[in-house]
Amino acid sequence: MTDLTLALDAMGGDHGPRITVPAAVQALRIYPHLKLILVGDENQITPLLSQVETNITSRIDIRHAPEEVEMGDKPAFALRCRKQSSMRYALDLVKEHQADACVSAGNTGALMAMAKVVLKTLPGIDRPALVSCLPTINHQPVYLLDLGANVSCDAETLFQFAVMGSVLCEAVTKKQHPSVALLNVGSEEIKGNGQVQQTAQLLTHTPQINYQGFIEGNEIYCGNVDVIVCDGFVGNITLKTSEGIARLLLHQLKQGLTQGFFVRLLAKMLAPSIQSVLRQMNPDHYNGASLIGLRGIVVKSHGNADETAFLQAICLAVTEATRRLPEMIEQRLESILLDINS
Amino acid sequence: MTDLTLALDAMGGDHGPRITVPAAVQALRIYPHLKLILVGDENQITPLLSQVETNITSRIDIRHAPEEVEMGDKPAFALRCRKQSSMRYALDLVKEHQADACVSAGNTGALMAMAKVVLKTLPGIDRPALVSCLPTINHQPVYLLDLGANVSCDAETLFQFAVMGSVLCEAVTKKQHPSVALLNVGSEEIKGNGQVQQTAQLLTHTPQINYQGFIEGNEIYCGNVDVIVCDGFVGNITLKTSEGIARLLLHQLKQGLTQGFFVRLLAKMLAPSIQSVLRQMNPDHYNGASLIGLRGIVVKSHGNADETAFLQAICLAVTEATRRLPEMIEQRLESILLDINS
Repeated sequence: MTDLTLALDAMGGDHGPRITVPAAVQALRIYPHLKLILVGDENQITPLLSQVETNITSRIDIRHAPEEVEMGDKPAFALRCRKQSSMRYALDLVKEHQADACVSAGNTGALMAMAKVVLKTLPGIDRPALVSCLPTINHQPVYLLDLGANVSCDAETLFQFAVMGSVLCEAVTKKQHPSVALLNVGSEEIKGNGQVQQTAQLLTHTPQINYQGFIEGNEIYCGNVDVIVCDGFVGNITLKTSEGIARLLLHQLKQGLTQGFFVRLLAKMLAPSIQSVLRQMNPDHYNGASLIGLRGIVVKSHGNADETAFLQAICLAVTEATRRLPEMIEQRLESILLDINS
Repeated sequence: MTDLTLALDAMGGDHGPRITVPAAVQALRIYPHLKLILVGDENQITPLLSQVETNITSRIDIRHAPEEVEMGDKPAFALRCRKQSSMRYALDLVKEHQADACVSAGNTGALMAMAKVVLKTLPGIDRPALVSCLPTINHQPVYLLDLGANVSCDAETLFQFAVMGSVLCEAVTKKQHPSVALLNVGSEEIKGNGQVQQTAQLLTHTPQINYQGFIEGNEIYCGNVDVIVCDGFVGNITLKTSEGIARLLLHQLKQGLTQGFFVRLLAKMLAPSIQSVLRQMNPDHYNGASLIGLRGIVVKSHGNADETAFLQAICLAVTEATRRLPEMIEQRLESILLDINS
């Protein structure tokens, strides 16, 4: 791996430096060529590094940021009034090419708005999208976007998400012409609201995209398509509902498995495999989600991410930076959009 | 139980009479005072009853309908051109008080549109909503609406759903002032799209509704609220995603439990409890969903419902008819809407 530098919003998320700093240290142990810029309140960050060996701290650069973006800040407010925040500072470092990527567990709306203003979107893209990879029954991971960066989207925006998702999947999985579907209330052409109806029209007339039509919620985890597109409102609720139902199922299984030594033993033996499935149910929480469509790499970690989860987000940023994802997406986008507009 | 008469759309659903007629016969065996009107193609229905004992067939009345609503029919088309369909005929029977309720497994959009025109909505209600009961971790069932009858809703419509859901829950569970929440991408006040934001405003200023604010997808199955409101696009995808994730979890558990005699044995023991949880994941499929806000009882069964599922839908219709649900809802609605408008 060539030398990489990531900027971490050390203050982001529900736990701030208590989580982000130890996760950063772990990441530096994993990647010997990695450098990290920890952006935030140096008075909180520095003490957390006092016990860390110098061959690790020598690859950490602390940049003081006097402000924080609060979880309750409206995007417009954060944009206007949090110019000295750790989140904004971390994004600036990517823009100024001092960092190859940025990771934050902070306010999604604010991160999206700031990233858009600071890094700018790729040519032909109006709004970035939050995307993550979900597990499926046939082990073909599926990319779902948008996961909450855009709570309301018109057809043109959903169309751009479809193009970006397709390009991302092709760039990462090397799969040619990945299949793309729109999440809808039914698979029949007449189903759905105005946005999905119009988006379907746009995609049907775009041979560069391998559009498969509508799919319903129960098909998300079947693995029959590579990319699933929906607005951020639906995507966010879909992902979180998956987490909720997995917990319910786990809970009811546990309840059903508490009578009798033999069955309790079974429950114990099953716990790890059930837990590992449960862990996959919320990729945003455990793998981080990427904000794509920008001229830079931004990885969003879940707000209440623990150390392991935030480390996962850092690892995702390392992978995307190593693959120079934005450049890859931009190149594919250019050719597709060129064809579409010609 | 006093004598009840239900009208069944015998042609509705993916399987038509092959499923609906045997389910009807089962229902008549369960309820000795029940009468059923089977509406549809008598040439398909009659042969399916040839082997049935007369004390059952004596309580079956076949009404011939020369048409069917197709699953692909647009609501407006079905309304205009399927006036002689089994679905329309069954709804007419409820309107003419020849039947106490109607059950159909047909096209949801068409059923919703026809029911609205034929039966009319209750005073103060613009659009009926599809509602069902979901299981939760603390065993407090939660009412989720709308499940797909209205793919796009303005704030006023969502507000009416909240009132109807609250009244339905109070009427059925006898719980005073049931708690109502709006499904959203975050619990903070600033989160969400225009519709949920405006609906929250309306509910905050309605003391008659025990409004609890926003909840996220992962909280649906926690059982912390009695009623959850969302538009039909989100509700439908949420419900179907729950089914999908449950299947994925079951699949992955099975995969994790195939090595070794002992573990396979334990896995077999687990299967029933997993299956029973799985069954609950799609109440629309297994229990039927109610179309509420109408001047009559309409129960929607899943399109590909099997005999047991369609029987469940008939049982739900029997319960609602026995409790005279529309009258109960109308009375509570009147008082609430009176207070709101005064």
